[in-house]
Amino acid sequence: MGNMQLFANPRYMNGAATNPDAHAYAHAGAQVKKGLEIAKKLGAENFVFWGGREGYHTLLNTDVRRELDHMGSFFQMVVDYKEKIGFTGQLLIEPKPKEPTKHQYDYDAQTVIAFLKTYGLEDDFKLNIEPNHTTLAGHCYEHDVVVASKFGFLGSIDSNTGSPDLGWDTDQFPMDIKNCTFVMKTVIEQGGLAPGGLNFDCKIRRESTDLEDMFIAHIGAMDSFARGLKNAAKLIEDGTLASLVKERYSSFDQGIGAKAYILEHGEPKLISGKQEKCEAIANYFV
Amino acid sequence: MGNMQLFANPRYMNGAATNPDAHAYAHAGAQVKKGLEIAKKLGAENFVFWGGREGYHTLLNTDVRRELDHMGSFFQMVVDYKEKIGFTGQLLIEPKPKEPTKHQYDYDAQTVIAFLKTYGLEDDFKLNIEPNHTTLAGHCYEHDVVVASKFGFLGSIDSNTGSPDLGWDTDQFPMDIKNCTFVMKTVIEQGGLAPGGLNFDCKIRRESTDLEDMFIAHIGAMDSFARGLKNAAKLIEDGTLASLVKERYSSFDQGIGAKAYILEHGEPKLISGKQEKCEAIANYFV
Amino acid sequence: MGNMQLFANPRYMNGAATNPDAHAYAHAGAQVKKGLEIAKKLGAENFVFWGGREGYHTLLNTDVRRELDHMGSFFQMVVDYKEKIGFTGQLLIEPKPKEPTKHQYDYDAQTVIAFLKTYGLEDDFKLNIEPNHTTLAGHCYEHDVVVASKFGFLGSIDSNTGSPDLGWDTDQFPMDIKNCTFVMKTVIEQGGLAPGGLNFDCKIRRESTDLEDMFIAHIGAMDSFARGLKNAAKLIEDGTLASLVKERYSSFDQGIGAKAYILEHGEPKLISGKQEKCEAIANYFV
Amino acid sequence: MGNMQLFANPRYMNGAATNPDAHAYAHAGAQVKKGLEIAKKLGAENFVFWGGREGYHTLLNTDVRRELDHMGSFFQMVVDYKEKIGFTGQLLIEPKPKEPTKHQYDYDAQTVIAFLKTYGLEDDFKLNIEPNHTTLAGHCYEHDVVVASKFGFLGSIDSNTGSPDLGWDTDQFPMDIKNCTFVMKTVIEQGGLAPGGLNFDCKIRRESTDLEDMFIAHIGAMDSFARGLKNAAKLIEDGTLASLVKERYSSFDQGIGAKAYILEHGEPKLISGKQEKCEAIANYFV
Repeated sequence: MGNMQLFANPRYMNGAATNPDAHAYAHAGAQVKKGLEIAKKLGAENFVFWGGREGYHTLLNTDVRRELDHMGSFFQMVVDYKEKIGFTGQLLIEPKPKEPTKHQYDYDAQTVIAFLKTYGLEDDFKLNIEPNHTTLAGHCYEHDVVVASKFGFLGSIDSNTGSPDLGWDTDQFPMDIKNCTFVMKTVIEQGGLAPGGLNFDCKIRRESTDLEDMFIAHIGAMDSFARGLKNAAKLIEDGTLASLVKERYSSFDQGIGAKAYILEHGEPKLISGKQEKCEAIANYFV
Repeated sequence: MGNMQLFANPRYMNGAATNPDAHAYAHAGAQVKKGLEIAKKLGAENFVFWGGREGYHTLLNTDVRRELDHMGSFFQMVVDYKEKIGFTGQLLIEPKPKEPTKHQYDYDAQTVIAFLKTYGLEDDFKLNIEPNHTTLAGHCYEHDVVVASKFGFLGSIDSNTGSPDLGWDTDQFPMDIKNCTFVMKTVIEQGGLAPGGLNFDCKIRRESTDLEDMFIAHIGAMDSFARGLKNAAKLIEDGTLASLVKERYSSFDQGIGAKAYILEHGEPKLISGKQEKCEAIANYFV
Repeated sequence: MGNMQLFANPRYMNGAATNPDAHAYAHAGAQVKKGLEIAKKLGAENFVFWGGREGYHTLLNTDVRRELDHMGSFFQMVVDYKEKIGFTGQLLIEPKPKEPTKHQYDYDAQTVIAFLKTYGLEDDFKLNIEPNHTTLAGHCYEHDVVVASKFGFLGSIDSNTGSPDLGWDTDQFPMDIKNCTFVMKTVIEQGGLAPGGLNFDCKIRRESTDLEDMFIAHIGAMDSFARGLKNAAKLIEDGTLASLVKERYSSFDQGIGAKAYILEHGEPKLISGKQEKCEAIANYFV
Repeated sequence: MGNMQLFANPRYMNGAATNPDAHAYAHAGAQVKKGLEIAKKLGAENFVFWGGREGYHTLLNTDVRRELDHMGSFFQMVVDYKEKIGFTGQLLIEPKPKEPTKHQYDYDAQTVIAFLKTYGLEDDFKLNIEPNHTTLAGHCYEHDVVVASKFGFLGSIDSNTGSPDLGWDTDQFPMDIKNCTFVMKTVIEQGGLAPGGLNFDCKIRRESTDLEDMFIAHIGAMDSFARGLKNAAKLIEDGTLASLVKERYSSFDQGIGAKAYILEHGEPKLISGKQEKCEAIANYFV
């Protein structure tokens, strides 16, 4: 995260890659074409597709398959044009499950990975995870960061937060030290985020009307991630939690896993998941 | 749905395909092996994997990638053994997002399709959709039925319902005519469900303590789907809704779609989504 | 609902009755004062307080008790001024749980009734229920309509709908016949809504961009409530469901209820709630 | 929390105070009668009514008003009998919004306060808040603790936690330092909880199968509340946050509040809510 980076975050015509109107689709394509040319000129290292409205409002008027096929073609054209002009930045898709649409096709990390694999795009795109979108999809804050990372798709993070008791996106500044710790743990474990990074795509709350609130919010959020990074580094250096996880799966390292299903040894004995111990260990570093 | 079918719905050891203990994994494998043998002997036409607990309770003690790799191997062994013994029934996976786990890997239709494609299993499995699981994943009742169908993965339906204002699975008998209509519309559009079918994996409510409640519930639910089927048939025969949808995408049928992104025609004009008209049309048949 | 009515729906300064700034509070008070004067002049029969933002965004900066006390004083001043100028319309409060606030004090029907009783305002206000707000509060569509009615507080209905799988307010036109039936059942049971009524505080979806969509939406929604009214009338005339409910509580009509707690008769036998039968009966009229 | 306390937590027949069957109601009454006698004999200082199932599964078979009237009578009998036998412990009601019912009448703190005021019971009962129930009702973790406290109803706390991304009650051990800090802040501000206290009505996770997990969970949770108490004490001693809140409402302390609504001073100027500053201050002590 120490590098200078240039992000191009094309919102083109939100929703146009799945728009039922070919003219809107073409128009959005032209916008992205221009965006790629500018990105190349400026030396952008990341190019984030934040579709935002690539979804439906009612299934009654929607041909889901056709829209996804259109979206697949759209991104294939992006890949082709990127190669044609020699743009070398990383392409990324940012999942979001809904709002303003009732259902967005880029629902969460696993759904976008499914889309990429279905349309043969998995080698050309990574994911830009925004954890408040993850919580809107019904998962815990760090879920998509972890899932994307473990399958090699974590390219960058919009490090916003939402309010877990609300059902829409508030794009607040991240202030929860525990959440920041778990995100940074994954970033360290995958060896950093470059050329991506932590991006604050946040806004101060509507009621925060002083100029200084802009500064306080950014400082408070950076401090939260700084504490999260330090906590995560200590948690990893300590090694207790990692050992516990490794030990949990150790019976698979003894040759039985691969041949497992032909065997039968009576009722297997219970092995504790030790969730409370893991939580207490994590608390030690938070 | 008029055919006799035999479903084998192995719950084996719920969660064991992702259990960190190799002995539990092996034990579950042995159960499934036995299940496949019995299914073959009885001539089962469907074999549903209802994992139910293939997920995690906390990311702190979990190696997500390893568990998914284990699950992938597990299902590969199933495919191998199925071929070895010559069992010809359809294998199916039933998505559910959570409960009792905090996160289940078979979250929804798109997630399971992603899993199948990631582990090269997409030619061997279809999906058994239970719409109350779909609503727990944050989608509308018929979403996963539609998505699975449009991508060729809809194999069977557990036709339960939940209560949309609750966050857990109530497995109630389906009694909403509109929901039943939308499900049957998809079934008709894909030309039927065989060898799958509509399965009532429901239970009467805890407070329904009379013997006759069992009969009333089944009759009421069958009547609901019968009305749904009739409604859907009329809706499709009428053709108004289908025309409206076809018209919506018609600009893509005129050659512009494929070449879209090189073109630019100024701001595209708005084309109404006509959601309220679609809803009113649908109401005419409900 | 056949009467001409004039609604005054003062949004004054949304949130100002609980605003920490006395000037904003005073400003909102002046707006409402003016509103009451105009309402009197025009002969308004209803005056709805749709606070909308009377709540908090974080408990950290909020004195909950003080804000509720301010809101209580605010409404007391409204009652005083109403009497002073001789305005005779019905005052109403419209519950909503959240959005854009994190928590709104007018959470749902029971919460507003609590507020009114706490501040001695229960004789001066009724409720204007908007069922999509009810679903945002975690209840089923008709819950607040029923609760408000049974406690004598149902004054009027904003007959919008939301999407039960979304966590924010979409203010859609009501198109679900079953929901409309259950709302009208309550309206008939309490002998009508006058001087209130069914108000469409809806908007067509953003994608509905044709002029005719405005007409189709209103017609489709009125038709839905018309069908709901007819269904509810038949359901009530039929009497089966009402008999079943009456029978359920009949043991309390035999003198045992009042003296219940001094008695003990061994384990009481189970009496079925017959939910599925009730649902099937209701379906017969939908 | 240093005092010895005896809690009687009668589950009697969950749901029986609103059961449509008078015999079940009478039976539950007899159980509570016995419970009160035992509580008196043992010198219990608290008597918690954890109704748990006092609600409905479908409005179709339910007379909401009658059930609430029955519940009101039930608790009035409790108060009468308590006085008759001279039991001096504090009576408490524990709110929960749902599960296993679709809707429980004791939805949240404000709803229970409404119920108590409606039935004239507000001088005889306090609330036992379980924050994971609060989150199920759609509020943030500490909301009901704060609301109950500010209206003089906070009697005791079941200090469990849930998982904010799940829709059912997991009764986990509280391990979130920030949540514990905000709860203890309220407890300190109201001058302690006696005769109530912090009660762990938690269970270890199903996967935590070692005996030591019981100890680790209790220790980890007590440590979390101990850290929360220390953090809250420092936060309060520091005074910055309290000053900021006091300042926010200060314009009401200058005489304008009471006379507010007759005044008008043009558009009031914006006063920042400073949410991010409050969050950053709080983080300094977490």
